[in-house]
Amino acid sequence: MSNKIIIVGAGLCGTLLALRLAQKGYQVVMYERRSDMRKSNVGAGRSINLALSDRGLKGLALVGIEDKILPLVIPMHGRMIHPLNTNTSFVNYSGRKGEWINSVSRGGLNKVLLESAEATGKVTIHFDTECEDVDLVKGHISLTNVKTGNKTNDYGDVIFGTDGAGSAIRNAILNQSAKYRFDFSQIYLSTAYKELEIPAASDGGYRLEKNALHIWPRNGFMMIALPNLDASFTVTLFLPFKGETSFEMLNTDEEIMAFFENNFPTAYTQMPHLLEDFRSNPTSALGTVKCYPWQINDKFLLMGDAAHAVVPFYGQGMNASFEDVVVLDELIDKYEGNWPQILSIFQQIRKSDADAIADLAVENEIEMRSSTADPVFLLKRKMELHLEQKYPDYFSKYSMVTFREDLSYSFAMERGRAQDRILMEYASEIMDFSLFDEYEALKRINNLT
Amino acid sequence: MSNKIIIVGAGLCGTLLALRLAQKGYQVVMYERRSDMRKSNVGAGRSINLALSDRGLKGLALVGIEDKILPLVIPMHGRMIHPLNTNTSFVNYSGRKGEWINSVSRGGLNKVLLESAEATGKVTIHFDTECEDVDLVKGHISLTNVKTGNKTNDYGDVIFGTDGAGSAIRNAILNQSAKYRFDFSQIYLSTAYKELEIPAASDGGYRLEKNALHIWPRNGFMMIALPNLDASFTVTLFLPFKGETSFEMLNTDEEIMAFFENNFPTAYTQMPHLLEDFRSNPTSALGTVKCYPWQINDKFLLMGDAAHAVVPFYGQGMNASFEDVVVLDELIDKYEGNWPQILSIFQQIRKSDADAIADLAVENEIEMRSSTADPVFLLKRKMELHLEQKYPDYFSKYSMVTFREDLSYSFAMERGRAQDRILMEYASEIMDFSLFDEYEALKRINNLT
Repeated sequence: MSNKIIIVGAGLCGTLLALRLAQKGYQVVMYERRSDMRKSNVGAGRSINLALSDRGLKGLALVGIEDKILPLVIPMHGRMIHPLNTNTSFVNYSGRKGEWINSVSRGGLNKVLLESAEATGKVTIHFDTECEDVDLVKGHISLTNVKTGNKTNDYGDVIFGTDGAGSAIRNAILNQSAKYRFDFSQIYLSTAYKELEIPAASDGGYRLEKNALHIWPRNGFMMIALPNLDASFTVTLFLPFKGETSFEMLNTDEEIMAFFENNFPTAYTQMPHLLEDFRSNPTSALGTVKCYPWQINDKFLLMGDAAHAVVPFYGQGMNASFEDVVVLDELIDKYEGNWPQILSIFQQIRKSDADAIADLAVENEIEMRSSTADPVFLLKRKMELHLEQKYPDYFSKYSMVTFREDLSYSFAMERGRAQDRILMEYASEIMDFSLFDEYEALKRINNLT
Repeated sequence: MSNKIIIVGAGLCGTLLALRLAQKGYQVVMYERRSDMRKSNVGAGRSINLALSDRGLKGLALVGIEDKILPLVIPMHGRMIHPLNTNTSFVNYSGRKGEWINSVSRGGLNKVLLESAEATGKVTIHFDTECEDVDLVKGHISLTNVKTGNKTNDYGDVIFGTDGAGSAIRNAILNQSAKYRFDFSQIYLSTAYKELEIPAASDGGYRLEKNALHIWPRNGFMMIALPNLDASFTVTLFLPFKGETSFEMLNTDEEIMAFFENNFPTAYTQMPHLLEDFRSNPTSALGTVKCYPWQINDKFLLMGDAAHAVVPFYGQGMNASFEDVVVLDELIDKYEGNWPQILSIFQQIRKSDADAIADLAVENEIEMRSSTADPVFLLKRKMELHLEQKYPDYFSKYSMVTFREDLSYSFAMERGRAQDRILMEYASEIMDFSLFDEYEALKRINNLT
């Protein structure tokens, strides 16, 4: 308990970690580059809302703040698919009752976590403070207040890097790659994203179905929308940077408006300040970061996006980060605060799951933007939902990843991919749900095990 | 011709490039962090000798300095395999006459290239000058003389980063990854290396066969030796950093000496200052660096190790870098000095070949340290050499990579892997060369195409 613990980065992962460590009796000092979002209206620097599902909820339950979060979330029971030329269709996320995902504001969630961490009396948070240099051997970090320019130093027995996809702690390790044989990869997608908005209707209501994740799949690109508490939707356009249909082709007002009118005619009419949003919001890149080791010198540990930044297409980035905290928490108990062991075992057991969700997220872009418009895929989803309804023990890949917080991401990936292969093949054989023989499907799937 | 060209890094790739550009009429300014190796006895920072083969020779022929280099090289016609408990055996690199690889001193080769570049009167080389900062948009670079501390700036229309595996130009791009969507990966091996020496015999002669690359394969580790002009051999021990048999287990003098005596008894007796070498030479990491794009803003181009650092097990690092210059040279002619086109097409056509040799090099570690002690592999090599002797149009994977500078690395990899699979399978069927039916082997291989 006398260990001095520093956490660099007070985003979602860092604050949940701080809160949990404080509950276990540790004193925690946090440094966060951004301003205190409770005092100033600062952007969280990333997407405005997120999908919170069972792995993330487990993390929030661990620290006992589920009750504070649930009023902030909007359940999304399935995908509302908006084809270009036919009617919308709603596809459940699960065939079981009680399985859905939740739209939540990143900022709202982070504020509750910050409050709860500070309320323990054991967490000190220094905002506007950037980690500029790291001595990986001694455990010293050099800090600069970005408002005053004041420079300070600090020292920790254990230092967590929860400072996100562009982690300063990770960059310090990267700068000494050969010494630590630091494997590192960052791979960008050719797809970019831009956030837009469907505001609340003039009567204050939702302009689209509230309890759904909306998708406009268009093969090479897509748009999605998640509901907010104020009845607006945060819309994200995913479109290639370059090419025939891409951001680089959208320059004049006419080009932009025509693109939305032609490709998203129903959404277009619900976006009164589309052009303004399109002009003022950035066009941003999407990438996957993998690295290893996460632990350095029995002292530093990367967690969350700093260790494993994933693309957003499985809605699991935050959930994976919260699961990191759950896993670490178990190890702290098991190894009774023996930090060298905890850090080392954490990275060993967690790496393959982080890799799995990273790969699943990349694959899911294709599923979202193309497969949701593919009749074979839609038939396969229908078959899966039927199986889930009738056989509660059957879990699709999506369900295992999203709702089975008791299964690892790597198990879910392996088992789920095998099921997908079998059901897609079967769907392409029958092509019509009336020919679906559930016993045949189950027989083929059971042959897997 | 009026373009101002800067090359950062005056190693093997940079100096060959400078020489070729000068021959084409360009003025070239070079910056090199190290001191002038012709004036001071500085380490080249990397392995002492290298294997020069046909792709590299093609680069040297392009600039017309083959004649100056050939007196510096020692042909190695094959691998001399030193098993632990049986006699040595010699395995040719090719079944054809006239196909061998060459041991050459990195420093000796670099000096000739530096001389030749300066002799054109069009190349200015600033030694002891480190590239500290890069403005990727404007094409400015900030330089520091590491001896005097003087800072200067320079500007280039075209700036080549040939500054090696730890490239400063590449790091500048990495620091702006999201802007350029810069894919980057570095993956380290668990194997480390340490250079040692077998000195000349007391009569000035070679203690081992001169015209061979010596290998002591020991499965989990190995030692190799390449001949030098002074009758010494540069020996490299490849051994894991950690584990049961590893560098971390070799601490006391007794442990070190016993390790060599037990594992390399014949070499051990030829290494009179083994312990001193072992203590004074570093234990270094081995890694692969891949990245993309190599071209930024129509102005910067990464080449050689800066673009594609490979592990040494195929002996192709320098050869691949020289081939970069050959490919670029052709594009300069084809696109008549239109640099944006040249840089862009260079990266497009060269990336897959760089990836191929990187992957081949990683695979070849296993072949060298394990397979050369495997009877099935040795039988397969014997079959291949027989095919190469009798059918001059047959080329093994090794031969395509090493001797066929007219074939791309990616073709050699794909075709070579397919041949390897077939011949290894056939070898494991017959297990004895007396049962080898060359027509059967050729039939199976021809089914490939």
